[in-house]
Amino acid sequence: MRVALAQIDPTVGDIDGNAAKVAEWIGHANGEGADLTIFPELCVPGYPAEDLYLKRHFIEANRRAVEELARGTSGTVALVGFAEPAADGDVRHAHNALAVLADGEVKGVYRKNRLPNYAVFDEQRYFVPGVEGKTIEVAGTWVGLTICEDVWDEVPPASTEAAAGAELIANPSGSPYHRGKGREREEMFAARARAYGAHFAFCNLVGGQDELVFDGQSLAVDPAGELIARAAQFEEELLVFDIPGNAGRVADPLSDLSEVYGALVVGLRDYVRKNGFRHVGIALSGGIDSALVALLAVDAVGPENVSCVVMPSPHSSAETQDDARTIAVNLGCETIEIPIEPAMAAYESSLAESFAEEGGVTAEPLPHDPARPSPADLAAENIQARIRGNLMMALSNRHGWLVLTTGNKSEMSVGYATLYGDMAGGFAVIKDVPKTLVYELTRHRNAEAGRELVPASVLERPPSAELRPDQRDEDSLPPYELLDRILEAYVERDQGREEMIAAGMPAAIVDEVIRMVDRSEYKRRQAAPGIRITPKAFGRDRRLPITNRFGG
Amino acid sequence: MRVALAQIDPTVGDIDGNAAKVAEWIGHANGEGADLTIFPELCVPGYPAEDLYLKRHFIEANRRAVEELARGTSGTVALVGFAEPAADGDVRHAHNALAVLADGEVKGVYRKNRLPNYAVFDEQRYFVPGVEGKTIEVAGTWVGLTICEDVWDEVPPASTEAAAGAELIANPSGSPYHRGKGREREEMFAARARAYGAHFAFCNLVGGQDELVFDGQSLAVDPAGELIARAAQFEEELLVFDIPGNAGRVADPLSDLSEVYGALVVGLRDYVRKNGFRHVGIALSGGIDSALVALLAVDAVGPENVSCVVMPSPHSSAETQDDARTIAVNLGCETIEIPIEPAMAAYESSLAESFAEEGGVTAEPLPHDPARPSPADLAAENIQARIRGNLMMALSNRHGWLVLTTGNKSEMSVGYATLYGDMAGGFAVIKDVPKTLVYELTRHRNAEAGRELVPASVLERPPSAELRPDQRDEDSLPPYELLDRILEAYVERDQGREEMIAAGMPAAIVDEVIRMVDRSEYKRRQAAPGIRITPKAFGRDRRLPITNRFGG
Repeated sequence: MRVALAQIDPTVGDIDGNAAKVAEWIGHANGEGADLTIFPELCVPGYPAEDLYLKRHFIEANRRAVEELARGTSGTVALVGFAEPAADGDVRHAHNALAVLADGEVKGVYRKNRLPNYAVFDEQRYFVPGVEGKTIEVAGTWVGLTICEDVWDEVPPASTEAAAGAELIANPSGSPYHRGKGREREEMFAARARAYGAHFAFCNLVGGQDELVFDGQSLAVDPAGELIARAAQFEEELLVFDIPGNAGRVADPLSDLSEVYGALVVGLRDYVRKNGFRHVGIALSGGIDSALVALLAVDAVGPENVSCVVMPSPHSSAETQDDARTIAVNLGCETIEIPIEPAMAAYESSLAESFAEEGGVTAEPLPHDPARPSPADLAAENIQARIRGNLMMALSNRHGWLVLTTGNKSEMSVGYATLYGDMAGGFAVIKDVPKTLVYELTRHRNAEAGRELVPASVLERPPSAELRPDQRDEDSLPPYELLDRILEAYVERDQGREEMIAAGMPAAIVDEVIRMVDRSEYKRRQAAPGIRITPKAFGRDRRLPITNRFGG
Repeated sequence: MRVALAQIDPTVGDIDGNAAKVAEWIGHANGEGADLTIFPELCVPGYPAEDLYLKRHFIEANRRAVEELARGTSGTVALVGFAEPAADGDVRHAHNALAVLADGEVKGVYRKNRLPNYAVFDEQRYFVPGVEGKTIEVAGTWVGLTICEDVWDEVPPASTEAAAGAELIANPSGSPYHRGKGREREEMFAARARAYGAHFAFCNLVGGQDELVFDGQSLAVDPAGELIARAAQFEEELLVFDIPGNAGRVADPLSDLSEVYGALVVGLRDYVRKNGFRHVGIALSGGIDSALVALLAVDAVGPENVSCVVMPSPHSSAETQDDARTIAVNLGCETIEIPIEPAMAAYESSLAESFAEEGGVTAEPLPHDPARPSPADLAAENIQARIRGNLMMALSNRHGWLVLTTGNKSEMSVGYATLYGDMAGGFAVIKDVPKTLVYELTRHRNAEAGRELVPASVLERPPSAELRPDQRDEDSLPPYELLDRILEAYVERDQGREEMIAAGMPAAIVDEVIRMVDRSEYKRRQAAPGIRITPKAFGRDRRLPITNRFGG
């Protein structure tokens, strides 16, 4: 039997466009002589379509699209993911399902048994589980049907399908990326294949959807757990192989840093494209974060579609401003320069009277004690960031840009960012990238280019927000190496203070970091979405209350 | 048997504080001679504590607090809500549970059978269901235990507990408010009581938690479905009654508008208090929305803790500015006045060069066609709103205020608000209040005061954002009466265009409203949280993708 895995990039909600893409790829698969073509999970409505799945007319529209698709299907048997209205007609009762299309008809439907409801997944909000497996015969080979989560534990239906004689377990998926996820998947599939003595074929989505990136990397393993085919990461591909017989293409996996970088590029590119933008704007400070965002933007949409805005203040050093201009020139982007001093002066005089008054209590979360500015100084610092945010948004309104924000995960964690200031923008490309990884990715991209796209001075200068004279991040924050270790434990692994201290992290700094993270929840709630690259990102993945007295 | 319902307002995450409050109220209940005292669902850890429930050390801390509470409990039997670690030690396996405290011990535990995972509820993310009921004997009466959702359908365990002889079904709850929810509950409890021939006692949380308000209104019904006790809405109360025998206090329910108003006041008051603020700031425009927010703020935290900021521009009319000042005076609040013209001039000159350039595509969602401003005009309008946002945040930094935003649900729906401008602030008090209800609530509060706290001119003037000369909302938007009807169908009831048009709504306007709502999702994602008062609010309750081509 010849199997094709159609690793496609559908768009959430674009039912007609997605169905047309499935029809087109069925044509490609027929061109390759495929007996069976596997499409990803929920590829007709798009995934995750969130509360669209609760709209009765949305479910009906995707069902009609699948029936229409079936009428045009000949040659290959196609497994196509859709949301099936449940028999009882209750809009809350849809199945995450797989239609078996062959000879102009929907020959059968498999309904996902195991609905993940953790991390970024809310499938029990949308779907009711199927309760049985389904096995079909294709070109004389028995194929067991599953969807994504169904095979992550050693449970039915895959176990029962294999026991009933399935030689291939098909596993269409919408398996979101995080760093190293591909290896986890390959180990899991190899273990299942050996346990059940069957082939496994995993066909994943590819592309970005809001916070998520699907990395593709579809694959097949034989009953010995050996990899017999692997598709590219972050690109559409039709991966073809035979069972038994010819192995397919086995794409080399990307290196660790190339993989993370690739996830960020495709996540950004798809957000721009799928939301109807063409051009992005970036406030380039001369620091490492905005430098990395500019690199990613140029790789995602091309230098002609990236505008860099340099907005010096009296606290900006000539060196950082020069570095900003150099980066824009190296990348071949437009540079716009707008000093912010006139607006600073206007605010200062407008606020003089109210600021002179005594009184009031201080409640806005503040950075680390030693360098904690006075309320008036904090206000002045934030105004600078907010003027820049306003200018970026004005340029966005005027020129139709998507503004990219440049905050990294370390800053987003501790609230070292100004709401409505540097946090102003539509997409937060590196919000899940810890500061230490920002350095690694920038060095990596320079190395790939074989030249200093980002000047060494940017990589070597101590990080600073440059909102007051001689300010350095490490006056207000622990060293980033330590901060990122604590944040990984606290944010990504939900460890408590005792556990972190027992692991050797300094108690006083642990307490301070916990305090900063907890007190910044209100800021994160108003942050732009960004691309998840770690096992736990801010957003749908980590849902903490703002009002929260726990402290740890 | 004497029963006490301890309708308390715990704080999420404040395990020690909540346990201390439970101990104190056990004392009150003993003072009333209660045999059985029922506390609300999950009152020790707080509800909803969201991903705090995934932290192993959080679950352990709440378990220890319950054991400590038990040691101090004598006299009454107390039912206390907590998150019970499951026997297998997996952090994802906690139960939403009820501890039976008596004579210094935890005598038993009931585990919630039915875990809601729709609307604002994510309980299947956090808990594993219990699989059996539990009946205890208190003062010679058999009491069946349930938690909230357990009794909303006619299913076990309540049905089996009643069949096994329970004369009273205890139902500790965390049942969030929406308009008219109290009546829905009373009808449900009356139906259950008659169906099972048992008393029901519902003890609800009271108070605000981020987006949610719990309205209290705890109650008891007898086996004929007759109400025998009802507690106040929006206040803590110990409600005592006897079974069989003396009915308890039956509080009069608030009128429809008083109820909504009360929900907004308590939601705001608790957000301020529980987040450690004392003082709030409001940008008062002279329009109806900020007027209502000022009324609510004064009722929530007192006029001495409310600062009103008037920020005229050259487009502000003298009448609206006078109305703003009048409202602040009527309410007894401080008024701060800061003209925005100097900052407008600074931005205009800074941006002149970049704005003169041609090119760019327009992508920011724009209002309704007829009055659609040019990109440059839109930018200029947004700058005014953003200057005001910056000034409010600067005053917040300087004086420690919580800034309240003033957008209503109609505006939040169609994106008729400026991100980082009038949307800048920590709490969006009326974001779930449709514009037509904003008028009703303001008139209602004036009537209650017996004088025009908000001048009639504010209620009568056609709504305008006053960002350009002679601007009126209805140049860009359908009349609010019609808009609110369409929004209720589309946002709250998930109707599609065909259904709305079939119900008599004009097709062209329906299409335009759908487009505006869908295209504003990115703005709402960056909005401050606000208080849910309808059956479907923006936020946890309505989870739509930003990247979404469905269009309906």
